[in-house]
This record gives sequence, C-alpha cells and structure tokens, in this order.
Amino acid sequence: MSADSASSSQAAVFRAPNVLMTVETFPLPDLKGSEALVAISCATVCGSDLHTYFGRRNSPSPSVLGHEMVGHIAAIGPRGVTAYRGHPLKAGDRVTWSMVWSCGRCYFCALGLRAKCEHLLKFGHETLSPGRELLGGFARHCLLPEGTAIFRVPPEVGDLAAAPANCATATVASVFRESGPCAGQSVVIYGTGMLGLTACAMAAANGAAHIIAIEKAPGRADLARPFGATSVIDGSLTPTAIREAVFALTDNRGADALWEFTGIPEVIETGFHLLRFGGRYIIAGAVFPARPVQFPADQLVRRLLRISGVYNYNPEDLKAALAFLAANAARFPFDSLVGRTFPLCEAQQAFQFAETAKPLRVAVLPPHTARTSTEL
Amino acid sequence: MSADSASSSQAAVFRAPNVLMTVETFPLPDLKGSEALVAISCATVCGSDLHTYFGRRNSPSPSVLGHEMVGHIAAIGPRGVTAYRGHPLKAGDRVTWSMVWSCGRCYFCALGLRAKCEHLLKFGHETLSPGRELLGGFARHCLLPEGTAIFRVPPEVGDLAAAPANCATATVASVFRESGPCAGQSVVIYGTGMLGLTACAMAAANGAAHIIAIEKAPGRADLARPFGATSVIDGSLTPTAIREAVFALTDNRGADALWEFTGIPEVIETGFHLLRFGGRYIIAGAVFPARPVQFPADQLVRRLLRISGVYNYNPEDLKAALAFLAANAARFPFDSLVGRTFPLCEAQQAFQFAETAKPLRVAVLPPHTARTSTEL
Repeated sequence: MSADSASSSQAAVFRAPNVLMTVETFPLPDLKGSEALVAISCATVCGSDLHTYFGRRNSPSPSVLGHEMVGHIAAIGPRGVTAYRGHPLKAGDRVTWSMVWSCGRCYFCALGLRAKCEHLLKFGHETLSPGRELLGGFARHCLLPEGTAIFRVPPEVGDLAAAPANCATATVASVFRESGPCAGQSVVIYGTGMLGLTACAMAAANGAAHIIAIEKAPGRADLARPFGATSVIDGSLTPTAIREAVFALTDNRGADALWEFTGIPEVIETGFHLLRFGGRYIIAGAVFPARPVQFPADQLVRRLLRISGVYNYNPEDLKAALAFLAANAARFPFDSLVGRTFPLCEAQQAFQFAETAKPLRVAVLPPHTARTSTEL
Repeated sequence: MSADSASSSQAAVFRAPNVLMTVETFPLPDLKGSEALVAISCATVCGSDLHTYFGRRNSPSPSVLGHEMVGHIAAIGPRGVTAYRGHPLKAGDRVTWSMVWSCGRCYFCALGLRAKCEHLLKFGHETLSPGRELLGGFARHCLLPEGTAIFRVPPEVGDLAAAPANCATATVASVFRESGPCAGQSVVIYGTGMLGLTACAMAAANGAAHIIAIEKAPGRADLARPFGATSVIDGSLTPTAIREAVFALTDNRGADALWEFTGIPEVIETGFHLLRFGGRYIIAGAVFPARPVQFPADQLVRRLLRISGVYNYNPEDLKAALAFLAANAARFPFDSLVGRTFPLCEAQQAFQFAETAKPLRVAVLPPHTARTSTEL
C-alpha cells in the first residue's frame, strides 16, 4: 500500500561527521500491521544533531538525522493506528510522536523507564537498512513503526513550536514531573538555551512565584524574561556572587528547586549550593562526558537535598508538553526561537548556519507533500 | 505541681570533651501548660553521643547527653498532654518521643521538614539552664516541652529495643519513606551498624526480595543475616569486585535502591555504581565533614538516578518505626544489639565501654523511679 501518488521519498543522508549531507531518494515503505507513514512538514535541528554531524559525539551512520519533527499522517498500515492511549488516527491528522520508540513490555518499560527500553529505537539515530531508511526528520517522510507513541498536535501550536516538542519540550516536561509542583515556589533555571527557556515558560505556566534564570551569554539572557523569568542572574559571576543573588531573591533560604540544563561541571557544582533545605535538584544538561562533579555529601544529608538525573522522557511527558504548548501558544513566543528556515534540499546549509550563527533552532522544511487519504 | 514524691532528679552532666561526667542533682521542674515529665527507664548511647563526648564533634555544653530513651509519664502539666495526633496521655503511660522538638508552624515545618524547624530543640543537645536541665537521656527524668511529639510504646517492644527507636529506627524509617516501597525489589544496604541492621530488617519486613548488605567488619557482617540480609558482601573488596557481586545478584542490572549508612566518601562513590537505571540512592551516613565525593554527572543523567540525603526524621517516621518494631519484635533480635547495661551512676563507664568495646549499643538504666499518677 503506497503512501501517496508518488512511490518514493527523499532524505538528507548523514554518512560521516563533516561529510556533506546529500538528499537521496528512497522507496516509500510498504506499510505493515499498524505502521504509519508521516509526511513531514517541519523538522528542527537539535543541538545533538549538530554534535553528531560535527563529530563531537558518536552516532550510527549512514543515517537520516533529525528527531524533532511534525507532520501529517500520509498512510496507515492494514491494521490501523491509534494515538497513544487514544483514538484511531486517520490520514491527514497532524501529529508528532515520541522520539524514543519503546516496547512498553520489557523490564525497564514496566518500571516506567520508557527511555531505557531494551528494544529502544530512536528516530534520527538509526542506521539505514532496506525498507527502514525513513526514520529521521530531515526527509519528506518518516516511517512510524508499530507501537510508536503518536499524539495529535493541537491546532494552536504552529509547526515551528511543534517540531521541538518531542525533544526539548517533552524533556522539560519530564524535568517538571521529577521536580514536582512549583506553584508559589522559587525555581532556578540554569542555562537558557532551548530547554532552559522552555523551562522558564513551564515554571511560569505552573505558577512558580520566582523564576530565576542564570545565563552567561547576554543574548540568551535577554530572552529569559519574555519566557517567564522573573529575575536573570549573570552566569559569569563567581559562584559566591551567584549564591548571594539567589539567596537575596529567596528570603535568604535558597531555591525550592533547581533545573540544570548546561551540563558544565562547574555549573552543576555551583547549583548544589543554591537550594534551600529539602530542595530538589534536577540535572538534565549532563548528556556528554565531562570531569566528575564534586559535592559535600554531609551537606546533601544535612540539607536533605534530592538530586535527580533526567534523560529523555516517557510518552506521557510528550502529551503534557503538547498540552502546555497549546495552552501557552499566545503567552510565550516559541515560534521566535527558530532563527531561520531552510528547504530540505539545503539541509547541509541549515546545519552550517546552525553551527555558526547559533540560533536556538533552525528548521528544515520539505517540499509540500501531497496528503492522500488512504483506504485500508 | 511536683512530679512525684521526690522533688529532685539526677542527671549525668557533660561539661567538656573527655572530662569525667558526674551525676548531679537538679530540682524537678514545675510543669506548665502541656509539658510532661517522664521517668526514664532506659537510655542508649548513640554513636553521636560518643562523637560528642570524645571530642570528634562540637555540641553545646554543659548539657545532659542522650537522646535515645524510653520511660513512663511521671507528671503532666495543668493543660494535659496528648500523644502526637493521638489521644490524651496519662501518668504511667510508657512513651518515647521525637528526639527533635519542632514547632509545627514555621516555614520548614510547614514544608514537612520538621528536622529543620526554625525553633528546633534536640534532646541531649541543649545547654543547661535553670529549670531546663532535664532535656537529655542519661538522667532519671526528662522534661517534655509543650508540643513534643510523644508516642505510646507498644508493649511488644522491650526497653532495649525501644530506646533507640527515636534515633536509629526512626531515621531508617525516614530512609525507607524517601526510598519508597521495596516489595519484590533488590536493596543494597551499605554499612551494618545499628542503622544498617535496622534497615536490613525493615527491608525484609517490607518484602524486599534481595537484601544485600555490604560490611567490611566481619563481626558486624555476621549480624546481617539474622536481621534479614539475603546476601552479605565483604566491604573490603575493591569497588569493581563489589559492583560485580551486586550485579551478579541482580540479573546484571544493579540494585533498585541503595541505602548508605557509612558516610565514607569512597563508599558513597562505590555505591553510585551499584544501581540499576532509575535506581534510588539514599544517603544517610554522611553526618560528619569529609572530603567531597565525586560522581560523573552524565551517568546520573543517562542512568536516571535519584540521590537523596536523609537526616533525622519527621514525627510520622517515629510512629512508623514503633509500628515496625512492634510487628517484628519476635522476628529480629533487636534486644541483642545492646551489648551491656550500666546504672546511671556509671554513665561515665558506659561511655568508656561503648568507645572501646564498640558494641552497637550500650544502655544506661536509672534507678527505679516512682510513678505517681498526677491529679491535674
């Protein structure tokens, strides 16, 4: 069952770090069972895509990069497909899905750790194989294997805001879940890249009383207030000065929660001293190897702190992320975080621009893909 | 309103580290409001008492040491006294109480952090002042200020097991609360002193499938199995060998939870690598200054770990501790952990014996105190 009138698709292929990506043609897959095919309308370049392409981390190749994306259902397998814990989907539905495919049945899925599924598949991270080429975002189509956690995208959420939902926004939703309710509380947000700004907005949307962003890059710091930060502290200050600033803003008690998005050891160590007794420290930025961090264990104990690592997310977090974006589409300028858009045929240029100009996001837009309703 | 036929009490007074403690006589306090006076029947010497007396930590002086104790209500103030969230108490009732007095109304109490109350009083840690001498365990009586979280001691729990309830057992109950349910799970318990053995028993009583004790002192390791440990690992092995042993016992996944009771930096660092993805690391032993501990933050994040510091406890934890002791009095030999008893007049010898022979606990027993019911 072909997806639409065309029987082929195109995708930008990553062959090795710093090797030019070229757009290649692949046959559309013959959908089986409850597979689905999505016509991608927008994919954004995540920092991890840049790390992969520019050789700062290892990732399978050849592959189609890109995991932040949104599109419309173009075709559905013979057994139909439903939204995650939801209703049947039909061709034309605008959707996003968990960037991590998880089986839902293995040891870790049963523990609620979907990101650690023993049969994990990560969109944008899969080696090309015949019939399984279309598993990344910088392409005209993406194949959704049976069991992908798919969600309808609310109409209030534009493509530019929706594309990062299944990476940045859902990860922040996972941080928020681990941190717990923050209404009336003080939250320090360390680092105001895509995740940190989203975190400011999510804290604001959830009623945090004090949203204290710490950022050393002036351009990014300026963005924090439009995204809900009530105070911005210059991250280039000394740890002592940063601590004094946070304590001055929190009745000299320290913050109720700290959400860390930089991964920098010195930052993680500074953050440890910004919390009140019983404060919650959520670390999400340390996704790359670095020197070990140090902390005084007796302070952890006597101050009754809790430190959590958050990595990726569960499908429910993506659901929460989409609801958050829909409810706050008019309140925070998420669309503005995409600095520039490129057509798919210029995916290589999109990467070069993202690496050098460093906007928070760059988007890649495939040529318009016909949406054909499919009779099953 | 005097407490009983006598109008005075006796207490062993700590004046300075390594200075002989002498038993001195103090007037019984005139009870006001909802104060109560307890005739102590047994007090045990906690490791922190030894640290204080032998000068390894600073503590107020002069004072009456001892916070682990049990006794009978000897007198009650004019407005009566009730058990914590419970019913009125009467003279003769056998009770214990939170070693931390907390106001229940301040910023931290309202947050559920009773151990960080802004008006904290700690039994066994208060400087003597007129009318407020009897606030420690190595004495005939203890004054319970209004608002003390008092609990009746179940009759199944003997004095030797009941005395440590308001320190060791309640702290372990707090660790258990932070760790969450462990039924069917694997729990590593690092260090098998009083807290570690109690932790083994609490994990067993709560249905843990694998209770893996790690202890380098052979004498203590031998005690772990009678207290519920299903495996005992020699803590003097290398970190790599310890990790291999734990992984061999946990389907090569690592433990669901780790409860740390040693406070030793190397141990805390080893423990970090013994957990499964999503594992819970509860650190309770680091109650003294030591070199900072190191951990790889990217492992915290990618392995989705949670590290919590636990220090002291909330009144509900003491309630849980007493219920645990009552339900398991016949199953685990808690009484046997008291290596020797001394009369109050030999409190000094009790400390010397505890320091040199290193039993898990030594008990100090005041001379029998008359129990007089008091008309209010």
